[in-house]
Amino acid sequence: MISNKMIDLVKNSSVIRAMFEEGKILASKYGEDNVFDFSLGNPSVEPPEEIKEAITTIIQTEKANLVHGYMNNSGYEDVRGEIARSLNQRFDTKFSEKNIIMTVGAAGGLNVILKTICNPEDEVIVFAPYFGEYRNYAANYDAKLVVVSPNTKTFQPNLDEFEQKITNKTKAVIINSPNNPTGVVYSEETIQKISSILEQKEKEYNSSIFIISDEPYRELAYDGVHVPYLTKYYKNTVVGYSFSKSLSLPGERIGYLVIPDEVDDFEDMIAAANVANRILGFVNAPSLLQRVVAKCIDAKVDISSYNRNRELLYNSLVEYGYTCAKPEGAFYLFIKAFEEDDVAFANAAKKHNILIVPGSSFACPGYCRIAYCVDYEKIEKALPGFKKLAEEYNL
Amino acid sequence: MISNKMIDLVKNSSVIRAMFEEGKILASKYGEDNVFDFSLGNPSVEPPEEIKEAITTIIQTEKANLVHGYMNNSGYEDVRGEIARSLNQRFDTKFSEKNIIMTVGAAGGLNVILKTICNPEDEVIVFAPYFGEYRNYAANYDAKLVVVSPNTKTFQPNLDEFEQKITNKTKAVIINSPNNPTGVVYSEETIQKISSILEQKEKEYNSSIFIISDEPYRELAYDGVHVPYLTKYYKNTVVGYSFSKSLSLPGERIGYLVIPDEVDDFEDMIAAANVANRILGFVNAPSLLQRVVAKCIDAKVDISSYNRNRELLYNSLVEYGYTCAKPEGAFYLFIKAFEEDDVAFANAAKKHNILIVPGSSFACPGYCRIAYCVDYEKIEKALPGFKKLAEEYNL
Repeated sequence: MISNKMIDLVKNSSVIRAMFEEGKILASKYGEDNVFDFSLGNPSVEPPEEIKEAITTIIQTEKANLVHGYMNNSGYEDVRGEIARSLNQRFDTKFSEKNIIMTVGAAGGLNVILKTICNPEDEVIVFAPYFGEYRNYAANYDAKLVVVSPNTKTFQPNLDEFEQKITNKTKAVIINSPNNPTGVVYSEETIQKISSILEQKEKEYNSSIFIISDEPYRELAYDGVHVPYLTKYYKNTVVGYSFSKSLSLPGERIGYLVIPDEVDDFEDMIAAANVANRILGFVNAPSLLQRVVAKCIDAKVDISSYNRNRELLYNSLVEYGYTCAKPEGAFYLFIKAFEEDDVAFANAAKKHNILIVPGSSFACPGYCRIAYCVDYEKIEKALPGFKKLAEEYNL
Repeated sequence: MISNKMIDLVKNSSVIRAMFEEGKILASKYGEDNVFDFSLGNPSVEPPEEIKEAITTIIQTEKANLVHGYMNNSGYEDVRGEIARSLNQRFDTKFSEKNIIMTVGAAGGLNVILKTICNPEDEVIVFAPYFGEYRNYAANYDAKLVVVSPNTKTFQPNLDEFEQKITNKTKAVIINSPNNPTGVVYSEETIQKISSILEQKEKEYNSSIFIISDEPYRELAYDGVHVPYLTKYYKNTVVGYSFSKSLSLPGERIGYLVIPDEVDDFEDMIAAANVANRILGFVNAPSLLQRVVAKCIDAKVDISSYNRNRELLYNSLVEYGYTCAKPEGAFYLFIKAFEEDDVAFANAAKKHNILIVPGSSFACPGYCRIAYCVDYEKIEKALPGFKKLAEEYNL
């Protein structure tokens, strides 16, 4: 009785679901402590203490009907103003509350902007490896995902192929840096090249092509790496942000869209995104959490724990003979499988109670993603398994 | 640059937006206290005290990574179990956590279930007058809204026309009782008749036709009126619930779907709704608020305030010569306009600084909706204006 589209979607979802179920079986067999689940991007670091304080203060001091009531579908004006102020301070931008739309996480924001701009058959370009949900989000609006194949040397985007794949149907390009699943940060040079290719193509086709910058991992960057703020490089840029990782609040579904004054048809875009937020059933971003993030706008989770995990895992795996681009951000490592079939490789890892996600889920077969947002001790205990796995293939 | 669909949607949204803007202009001209805004369903009654206590307890005693973290896309199992237990106790049903999917309000839930079941061109039946967003929700999945014209005597559904409008394309019927905009509660007799018509049509077409029961106003029922629980009358019933009104939390976007064991293809339905919740960008209902409503499952807002408003407004308007079905639930009154053109009538009301919504927004021209979820004093102060308005037409 379910719709034809959902039949396929349920089928495709079953790979990760099966992994999840297998993880539970392994845990019941060997004990939770002896199963090493690196499959999920669920933050292990606690939210900063400011969150608890902010919730308590708001509940004690603000009017309940304000805190829990309806507001403009785009969110509270004061919250949006506070976010604009913080962005301007950090990135030397000139946003105001009218450029900010509060959303149900970045996933909600991406759906809002895609609903806003996509006609059926419009093309949305992504760079492999990419977060698999982009395919579903585009399909929600009958847009067509166009995949640029991966550059497996650096995992920077493949720009020649990108240029060739832009057509008069191209409506948007999704950029996700720091990247899921590679952890790679796109360099300023990459961003400049993408921008100049797009500017040229907009002229050629007399069209608007939007960059949608999906930035849940913006604050998770290591070694002082520079993560360019994309609205400064390309006019038609819309930013989708989430507090899920920066404040360890993934369950709360709180994020925002930035739609700069400079985008084509700004007034229409803002009006349409506001309506899309409503009619998609979000209505507005959760109200209490809007007020909480505004109070915690300069707070951050302690990323030194993730960094410690990254160093231990990256250095150990390289020592054992694994190949991977050193991640500069997010909490993922993307390793080359020791055989072509990444699903078989993930299954071989499972024999050591190690759960990792095959790269095919990210349109990059032959690789696997390790999510290291877990306890340090978990990584320490998993290392012998990773070592044995390497030896099995390389002896 | 916005999509063709959104161009129309933005245009249609502008009627209510214009009213909102006019309200602000009136308020600045005559003072907030002298403008009587009955246009919005934003609860005026404070959330029950239990909400504040629950938030405080959870923040103090539960692990932050649990409270704010990812969980199954359908929600926390313990929360879903608690909701099932409460429903079973109140309605003598037999639900368990597997029948409950936590959603981003009822709007989120309705979108999830429509995405789950609708193929393009499927038909979704609604009874006029109906909440205008249903049209947008159905359109999100390219389903076609089929409207049964209103029975303006009782505002119970027009069942003969309903029966005639069911086709082999009918996938669902949305029932909203207590009703927005009329406040009418559909009687048990009505529900039984709807069920038996649907059962017969399912046989005739060898199809599944779902009742989607949209129930944000279930707890707002007066004079001890019985609001039937629809899963007990018809097998293929899915309930969409929201805590927005029962706990005055509309900004928090927290609700749930009930998908009973008995629905056709139950396992597929549950799996698909879980996936739909994720890929539509909701991912899951806001986590802290899930835990809060589970703790407050038997709490309720003080509906005696709404009841007082209802009595004052209904009795006064009838005395002034207005016609309207006495509302038994929700916080709306649906009055007959004194002229055919309900928009003109709403404009005439505006001259008395009274803001009401034309019935055409609910597919029922010639009527207007008054949302009485406002302060009692506001109603008292507005009554002379309502009286003068009646006199203008009836002198």
